[in-house]
Amino acid sequence: MSKQSAVSNQQHLHRAAAQRTVQVSAILETTFYVRFAETDLMGIVHHSQYVVWMEEGRSDFMRRKGFAFDQWEAANIGFAVSELNLRYHAPARYGERVTVRTWIESLRSRQIVFRYEIVNADSRQELVTGTVKLIAVDRQNQVRTIPQEVQKLLAVSG
Amino acid sequence: MSKQSAVSNQQHLHRAAAQRTVQVSAILETTFYVRFAETDLMGIVHHSQYVVWMEEGRSDFMRRKGFAFDQWEAANIGFAVSELNLRYHAPARYGERVTVRTWIESLRSRQIVFRYEIVNADSRQELVTGTVKLIAVDRQNQVRTIPQEVQKLLAVSG
Amino acid sequence: MSKQSAVSNQQHLHRAAAQRTVQVSAILETTFYVRFAETDLMGIVHHSQYVVWMEEGRSDFMRRKGFAFDQWEAANIGFAVSELNLRYHAPARYGERVTVRTWIESLRSRQIVFRYEIVNADSRQELVTGTVKLIAVDRQNQVRTIPQEVQKLLAVSG
Amino acid sequence: MSKQSAVSNQQHLHRAAAQRTVQVSAILETTFYVRFAETDLMGIVHHSQYVVWMEEGRSDFMRRKGFAFDQWEAANIGFAVSELNLRYHAPARYGERVTVRTWIESLRSRQIVFRYEIVNADSRQELVTGTVKLIAVDRQNQVRTIPQEVQKLLAVSG
Repeated sequence: MSKQSAVSNQQHLHRAAAQRTVQVSAILETTFYVRFAETDLMGIVHHSQYVVWMEEGRSDFMRRKGFAFDQWEAANIGFAVSELNLRYHAPARYGERVTVRTWIESLRSRQIVFRYEIVNADSRQELVTGTVKLIAVDRQNQVRTIPQEVQKLLAVSG
Repeated sequence: MSKQSAVSNQQHLHRAAAQRTVQVSAILETTFYVRFAETDLMGIVHHSQYVVWMEEGRSDFMRRKGFAFDQWEAANIGFAVSELNLRYHAPARYGERVTVRTWIESLRSRQIVFRYEIVNADSRQELVTGTVKLIAVDRQNQVRTIPQEVQKLLAVSG
Repeated sequence: MSKQSAVSNQQHLHRAAAQRTVQVSAILETTFYVRFAETDLMGIVHHSQYVVWMEEGRSDFMRRKGFAFDQWEAANIGFAVSELNLRYHAPARYGERVTVRTWIESLRSRQIVFRYEIVNADSRQELVTGTVKLIAVDRQNQVRTIPQEVQKLLAVSG
Repeated sequence: MSKQSAVSNQQHLHRAAAQRTVQVSAILETTFYVRFAETDLMGIVHHSQYVVWMEEGRSDFMRRKGFAFDQWEAANIGFAVSELNLRYHAPARYGERVTVRTWIESLRSRQIVFRYEIVNADSRQELVTGTVKLIAVDRQNQVRTIPQEVQKLLAVSG
């Protein structure tokens, strides 16, 4: 999908996010409570924890797109994390519910960039934004191509 | 509440658990997906993770009983973990949903014992069972008494 | 090794621990700083973290006994955690160094019980004590026997 | 410090890193074993774990510069994580020792950027590189200025 059509798509679907980023998939939301163990002595969620939440958003995205982990395994596709970027805007705290908003920012034959927006589930205050770049690899950790039909399923339609 | 009436209560409500333990509260269930980050190189959920899940079961129990964390803080009651016991029956794996079944096994003026049964949410296979003993403390970490009305709210009625 | 000789051994080596437990191996110590991420909003180390530290004590014990993980793998021996018991005496805090004291409490053909004492590395204050029971399994997760020569190497001599 | 003098300094000390980054402090190294609990079902260290290691490198850096955490607290200076960027080059595995190389890339009145290079402690293979941007805040989470004398102690001389 071209960058242009992605921009066009996001204009209709997700205005707020669209102002900042391109998007080649639906935005899916995953909501859960902050766990006590996720906090640190500053009284807030530890900054490493958002990386785990982003991964959970991605897992949920894949499940809802119909890709269970055992299917990836059977198809001999794994995804190695290549880059990670986070911006911290406000802290999450124990007792709050957070929503991870997950979408695909770019999808190429051998890599996917997911973008995230983590917000307070109730106030919708923005807490953390970020991206993760994944490289498709086989069991021998060699870079491989994501099959066309998988690329289609991951991309925009819903 | 006497041990006898607790046993009587659980006979009606929760037969399987009743065979093994007494119970002075309802059993509340909390269900979620296993996170990728919770696994280890054996391909299963790391054994320390169940301790976090038990705590999340306890948090959910408290929330549904109407006790938000900030209320505990305002009332100057905290709970210090005093003992932890787990038995591992079968491993949880990524891709599965687990259910943490949480109830109070004993409730005394200064301590609570929670009992847990963690099962596969779909097959109901038993994965881990355990208990945690909590001591009520104030902000200065001094042992204190759990107010009568709190004890009543935590106990059996639902 | 008989229970008696274990007791005799520990009398010379480790008086404090000897008062409570039998011991069929040397006690090895592993010391490290508390990590910031290991704390929670109570300002202390989260209670699940001691389980990870006990495992790290066990890893270090095995390494110093000459058993690298790849050797276990090559010998098709894994260890599944079967039981976990912890008693919390005092909290560890960020900025402190802790020492995990690890020894084998019982060693049978198919299972090992490790006992731990986690202390403040400087004051030697006791923080947490506990045990973990491990079952020897092969790659198919079937219970198997720990080879005689391995049992000998793990046991008492140093 | 100008980029040029930083490069000059690091040429003598740390050639590989010098090619990519400026540096306004010494590079300090912190070495430890990978923990079993830090791995995931891919058999490698989970990508969120490097964030914790970077923080541990930073803690060690601060300790060796003479700043204990309670001194920061007493001085009413905290550091809020503002940005995090990681590049993953090769995975760490259980059984390996890793070295976190930590230095200050930029130091301004209200923020510090730490840069990290995480390498295999034995082969020196590069595993992960990254930066974290910290904002100096007081107890009320208001941005504040890092005292001049602290800035001097953190910066280049050793």
